[in-house]
Amino acid sequence: MTTIPAHNDPICAISSPPGSGAIALVRASGEGVIALCEGMVHLPGGQSLHDLPANNTRHATFRRGDEMLDEVMVTLYRAPRSYTGEEMVEITCHGSPYIQQQILLTMIDAGLRAARPGEFTQRAFLHGKMDLAQAEGVADLIAAAGAAAHRLALSQLRGKVSRRIGEVRKQLLHFASLIELELDFGEEDVEFADRGELLSLATGLVTTLQGLAATFREGNVMKNGIPVAIAGAPNTGKSTLLNTLLQEEKAIVSEIPGTTRDFIEDTVTVDGYLYRFIDTAGLREGGDTIEKIGIDRSYRKIREARIILLLTEWTTAPEEIRKQYEEISRMLDPEQQHLLPVVNKCDTAPPGDLEKLQEALAALPEPPLFISALKEENLEALKERLGHIMHLRQPGDQEVIISNMRHYEALQHAAADLQRVAEGLQNGLPADLVAMDLRQAIHHLGEITGEITTDEILGNIFRTFCIGK
Amino acid sequence: MTTIPAHNDPICAISSPPGSGAIALVRASGEGVIALCEGMVHLPGGQSLHDLPANNTRHATFRRGDEMLDEVMVTLYRAPRSYTGEEMVEITCHGSPYIQQQILLTMIDAGLRAARPGEFTQRAFLHGKMDLAQAEGVADLIAAAGAAAHRLALSQLRGKVSRRIGEVRKQLLHFASLIELELDFGEEDVEFADRGELLSLATGLVTTLQGLAATFREGNVMKNGIPVAIAGAPNTGKSTLLNTLLQEEKAIVSEIPGTTRDFIEDTVTVDGYLYRFIDTAGLREGGDTIEKIGIDRSYRKIREARIILLLTEWTTAPEEIRKQYEEISRMLDPEQQHLLPVVNKCDTAPPGDLEKLQEALAALPEPPLFISALKEENLEALKERLGHIMHLRQPGDQEVIISNMRHYEALQHAAADLQRVAEGLQNGLPADLVAMDLRQAIHHLGEITGEITTDEILGNIFRTFCIGK
Repeated sequence: MTTIPAHNDPICAISSPPGSGAIALVRASGEGVIALCEGMVHLPGGQSLHDLPANNTRHATFRRGDEMLDEVMVTLYRAPRSYTGEEMVEITCHGSPYIQQQILLTMIDAGLRAARPGEFTQRAFLHGKMDLAQAEGVADLIAAAGAAAHRLALSQLRGKVSRRIGEVRKQLLHFASLIELELDFGEEDVEFADRGELLSLATGLVTTLQGLAATFREGNVMKNGIPVAIAGAPNTGKSTLLNTLLQEEKAIVSEIPGTTRDFIEDTVTVDGYLYRFIDTAGLREGGDTIEKIGIDRSYRKIREARIILLLTEWTTAPEEIRKQYEEISRMLDPEQQHLLPVVNKCDTAPPGDLEKLQEALAALPEPPLFISALKEENLEALKERLGHIMHLRQPGDQEVIISNMRHYEALQHAAADLQRVAEGLQNGLPADLVAMDLRQAIHHLGEITGEITTDEILGNIFRTFCIGK
Repeated sequence: MTTIPAHNDPICAISSPPGSGAIALVRASGEGVIALCEGMVHLPGGQSLHDLPANNTRHATFRRGDEMLDEVMVTLYRAPRSYTGEEMVEITCHGSPYIQQQILLTMIDAGLRAARPGEFTQRAFLHGKMDLAQAEGVADLIAAAGAAAHRLALSQLRGKVSRRIGEVRKQLLHFASLIELELDFGEEDVEFADRGELLSLATGLVTTLQGLAATFREGNVMKNGIPVAIAGAPNTGKSTLLNTLLQEEKAIVSEIPGTTRDFIEDTVTVDGYLYRFIDTAGLREGGDTIEKIGIDRSYRKIREARIILLLTEWTTAPEEIRKQYEEISRMLDPEQQHLLPVVNKCDTAPPGDLEKLQEALAALPEPPLFISALKEENLEALKERLGHIMHLRQPGDQEVIISNMRHYEALQHAAADLQRVAEGLQNGLPADLVAMDLRQAIHHLGEITGEITTDEILGNIFRTFCIGK
């Protein structure tokens, strides 16, 4: 009798998006799923499911007891050549929720278990089909709503992050093996590892890890949306601008039949970048009030934003615009944040007035944009400017970007561990103390790719997945 | 050079339900789709898509120009061994709306056209993979929300309706061939067809066709939901009952992760039957007001319902309950409609009172049900009673049920044509006049299975399909 490891028990799930459609996909994975599905999936001519070659798609009928439920296509995958690394059965059925539900119920009655979120990918990880960072890339890929986030997730899925972490970890392991060797010869007080070389390696790797961790700000923004705060006095047209930007995009998306229907209200993809537009309603009118805004929420939104659109009207005095610009500027980190003056309602300006305003504002660090949110004038220029700002900060193709908070934290920990290693070496600490910090650093890097893992880490990661993946 | 017929041009669509999920399915069909997809679907080792055997699922990368978009599974089908009867490419990708959209856009850029609703099934029909009634069964199958509607659609998809219509049509064609033969020998005044036999056949078939058409009431109810009106005076707990029935079912459905999320507010499946619960709020309190309801809407709802629940309270006087029961009864067709007295709020009744009420109502044609909608008491008995009423009218396995309005109309027309044929034979009309009606009857039956069709009929049928099917 063989004992089935806990992570091999047969599971099933609907893997296509929930709801009604032309076709739905139900997947089963685990020890013995082909045998379990034998009673429900009937091939023409009474052929046994067992005799169906792997990776072969066949027409079949799906039965629930005596009753025929649907005409389906069935594909088998045999371990380890499958997504999970286990035996798998894939069924594409007609996409009615009723059929999907009945197929799942039939499988559950036959002894399969409804898969937990991400359980297929978790098994792929446990069976060595991908490492943990790649598995997390799968979830990011499915969630990615724009080209930038998509590219990031795909490169993570394909192992770019893992390879970079792996390189660093390999250097540390070599380093550690020398130190451990010294410990084995502890009594003899030998030094296999040149302390100068080790120090230079450790400090170099601290810089590398800190650099990787620093990309998280960029990666997080690419993944979750670039925060753009629309600031300005009341009635400058902030909501009109927001709605125009959102609605226009929605219309473009719905041109393709059958795609996105769920839209998060305040994010919008422009030229592949996901922007998270944030309304800040706190700026009161008047000359000297900005510094007194006093509303923590508006402050925070502006400080958290990557780009701040300062919305004014063409009737606003140039000195007032300059004043607001300077006052907001003082809150910002010029390295990380961009303040963009936008003059609205320009469709109502008499000829020549905009040119005068432009001249009066020529001294601003950013030239103002002249738009009409209501008449949708010059919005393309605004979008281009947003894209231009982001493009300036766009990483090169070869650069590794961290977009996962868990990776960021592990990198921070590993960098701190290595910092202690460097300090230890500088202060001539004994090898066993240096080795302890070094092991910690290796441990933290191993958490990223999953060489080191716990059930808790896995649980936290996979419960954010969707069902069926 | 070959010319491509208009219905063979390459089309593509997302066939899985819209939105985000683990996996999505994109399908392409038509002349040359494999060649068109060659530039986007890259197999490992540089293998050409053309060399991939049919019905074989392979891992591949999907590219949009220079950019890799996703890791996908690809399956080819070669004409005529595919759903549409054409060359087909099926791609399962990660289920983000962004990826789905980009794959579709890549295909459209390569010259494929976004498929119209039902266009894959329309092609299956045009290429002789299924007849028209079967094609309509596909749409019904996807829309079927309960076991009864599901069974009906599946039997239609599998050709049960078509075979029955085909048998009748065959008899008529034999009949017609004899008459037409007489017309060829028109001058000689011969009668190849025995008029008595023809008359008996025609009248027999009129009965058959009328019988089939009569099943439409049943079939329509199975397909679109059994209308159940909840009638009764205000504050008898109609809304509580409705909500309890709906919510309970919703909870059951959502036990299975990843299934139905869209729920039509007022339909609910109980034991495989789809019920369409209808609130009628018009019955005023008081002894003699029911006949004066005067609200057309409530009248109509009650008349259209298949089952009417007359809700009262245990405190309502027995004579009042009897009076309401009789007054509603008079509106109904006892052959087709069921009036069920339901006494609500029974959890608050003192011991013995319900027994007394039961005795007092013993003379009603239907024994009353005693429930508490609020405490969810005895609702199982109510559901069983609903199921029992429907089961009484449940057709046998061998019986053909018409559930399609178009089929119903065609059958009505064909029956009327045949009725005229019978009358013509009885009145000794000349063969050419009889033949004309006979041809009409054959024509109408041919419309059901699609031997006779027009672009308009096809357009009407397939535009109700979902995209991707």
